[in-house]
Amino acid sequence: MSTHSEVPETHVLAIASHVTSGYVGNTMATFCMQTLGCEVSAIHTVNYSNHVGYRQFKGRKSSPEEVSELWAGLKNARLDHFDMMLSGYCPSAALVEQVGKIARELKSRAYTKPGSFFWVLDPVMGDNGRIYVAEDTVPMYKSLLRDADLILPNQFEVELLSEIKIHDLSSMKQAIAKLHQTHRVPHVLITSIRLPSSESSTPTQAEEDLATTAKLSVIGSTATSDMNPRLFRITVPALAVFFSGTGDMFASLMVARLRQAAKAADLLDKASWRSPDDVTASDLPLAKAAEMVLASMHATLKDTAAHYEAAGKELQKNQQSELNEGNGDEASEEKETQRHLALTRAAEVRVVRNVQALVSPPDLDDFKAQALNVDADGNA
Amino acid sequence: MSTHSEVPETHVLAIASHVTSGYVGNTMATFCMQTLGCEVSAIHTVNYSNHVGYRQFKGRKSSPEEVSELWAGLKNARLDHFDMMLSGYCPSAALVEQVGKIARELKSRAYTKPGSFFWVLDPVMGDNGRIYVAEDTVPMYKSLLRDADLILPNQFEVELLSEIKIHDLSSMKQAIAKLHQTHRVPHVLITSIRLPSSESSTPTQAEEDLATTAKLSVIGSTATSDMNPRLFRITVPALAVFFSGTGDMFASLMVARLRQAAKAADLLDKASWRSPDDVTASDLPLAKAAEMVLASMHATLKDTAAHYEAAGKELQKNQQSELNEGNGDEASEEKETQRHLALTRAAEVRVVRNVQALVSPPDLDDFKAQALNVDADGNA
Repeated sequence: MSTHSEVPETHVLAIASHVTSGYVGNTMATFCMQTLGCEVSAIHTVNYSNHVGYRQFKGRKSSPEEVSELWAGLKNARLDHFDMMLSGYCPSAALVEQVGKIARELKSRAYTKPGSFFWVLDPVMGDNGRIYVAEDTVPMYKSLLRDADLILPNQFEVELLSEIKIHDLSSMKQAIAKLHQTHRVPHVLITSIRLPSSESSTPTQAEEDLATTAKLSVIGSTATSDMNPRLFRITVPALAVFFSGTGDMFASLMVARLRQAAKAADLLDKASWRSPDDVTASDLPLAKAAEMVLASMHATLKDTAAHYEAAGKELQKNQQSELNEGNGDEASEEKETQRHLALTRAAEVRVVRNVQALVSPPDLDDFKAQALNVDADGNA
Repeated sequence: MSTHSEVPETHVLAIASHVTSGYVGNTMATFCMQTLGCEVSAIHTVNYSNHVGYRQFKGRKSSPEEVSELWAGLKNARLDHFDMMLSGYCPSAALVEQVGKIARELKSRAYTKPGSFFWVLDPVMGDNGRIYVAEDTVPMYKSLLRDADLILPNQFEVELLSEIKIHDLSSMKQAIAKLHQTHRVPHVLITSIRLPSSESSTPTQAEEDLATTAKLSVIGSTATSDMNPRLFRITVPALAVFFSGTGDMFASLMVARLRQAAKAADLLDKASWRSPDDVTASDLPLAKAAEMVLASMHATLKDTAAHYEAAGKELQKNQQSELNEGNGDEASEEKETQRHLALTRAAEVRVVRNVQALVSPPDLDDFKAQALNVDADGNA
């Protein structure tokens, strides 16, 4: 059995949301990183009863002052030495700014010791064309990019940050190139990408693959020394269920696995753990880490999907028997709410029951990264 | 390898403190229970940068209203079905009261379904003769005992709750009997006990064992049907280092292992998972669970102690070389603070690097529970 001891001892500062029930934000990320052996110091940006996908929740947001106070407490007690930082959801631009201050402080301290601090920034802003944070959060994230080592946007967030609409492989490459060149981000990983197949009159095979709804692509790049993209792609089977927290699961597992892969490639004392130019895209530590993470996630989500389906069938059975008893019409809105709550809970990622899949990613061969060479016409 | 799948699926509501850095309260308990496969919903009673053993910290306490609001959020979203609850440190009597309300609500719901809810109450009040919470917390805890299924006091807390001073085995048995009989607590586990050897002019062998500083005793009892104590003892080697969070580690591992042991004994549908009267003390699920927990803890703490000692030697070496350079006297108070902070950090339990010891308790045979028969004269 491969174990977390392959992941070197790593102290991570994790700044994201906390929920009492379920697995999103720090509640997901802390457990995933700890399971892989990382020491995690968690600062919460919100403290809610559950994630917003339930359509109802209670609790409170943290103020920038509260976050800053906890950070001051860590500094006073000399508990502020971190190898990595993972930042996720922030409910306001002011909180994004505060998180950026902490990251920059850690970054500037590491200036004389390249590679001793690495910031993974998940610029949580929206998805599928819709922003779900305050609008002023977008420019704030843009201003922080220069200090991030790895960013993990989804397709929509790449578009917001790069101001380039992605409609084919060529525009995707442009967007990543802009993040490397204009915003100086060394590593970019787009966590899910779907390209419309109708955009191109003669779609390439690569574009057809990307457009297949049963498949999702993860596309990554570590910039070369002249800040050009070095693109790879990993194609993963898409599951028919929407799971909350998968972005946080992906980001947190990447923290541990990227440090492991960077150590294996002897890059931990290199600035931003960047690979030499002669390393091909599919051999990048970023690619190797993503392979492991996606294998772990696929096994865990498959198990979760099976439980979700079983819960759905159980619900349907109960509703059918109520219909048969003539009680079907009563308070149907309330019933729909109950059904939504039950299914949302059933879709909570079964992360604690799948520790083995996190520690020893199964079927790794199914998640091989492939170099993605896109020419000027957008052909792979 | 034995795995957490031996622990049945268990939803736990955990109410205790949260720290950003280090492992005490919920920060310790959540990881331990999750590692053993439990779903944990955590409500935090305080949110501090680090534990108070550092002698400095920042952050805030939760108000009873905040705790009550999160609980209301869980109820609204139908996320309030729990098999077990673990409650720990509360900074005020009002918060203890709020936690009691939640426990009683869960308890009363389970009234028609015996064994479907089990409350593990850690009455955190003080240690070694010193109360470190508000004085009015003591009567509040007493008023909650009636609804608790298992309590995990240390020796001093047993004395506070039972109003019986423990100076020998006989008085210890009286104290436990009072908790069973007057306060109706079915399971009691005293997490560390030392009896002064001078108290008795002719100490029994059992008392001499207890008094040896190199050994600690854990003493437990599950009441018989007539509420008499059924006592067992497990003797563990004491380590020379003080670790924070070990009480929370003990409590949270007990949650998972007690449920596992109660299931193995087919007691999950019995009120408070109480064993029939013909089960001897050393065969109680409480004893079986404690054996596993103490084995896991001893291995983890031994590893932590080794790291602690290495850190201490490193510090000493650095101080010696400063002395040799003639800088030894400068700002010695500041140096003492730095030394205290460094050693306190080095004593943080290395729980995330010892997952294997949590999942598969090593050297189980060294932690066998023994029935403890104490006669009226206090002789074992």
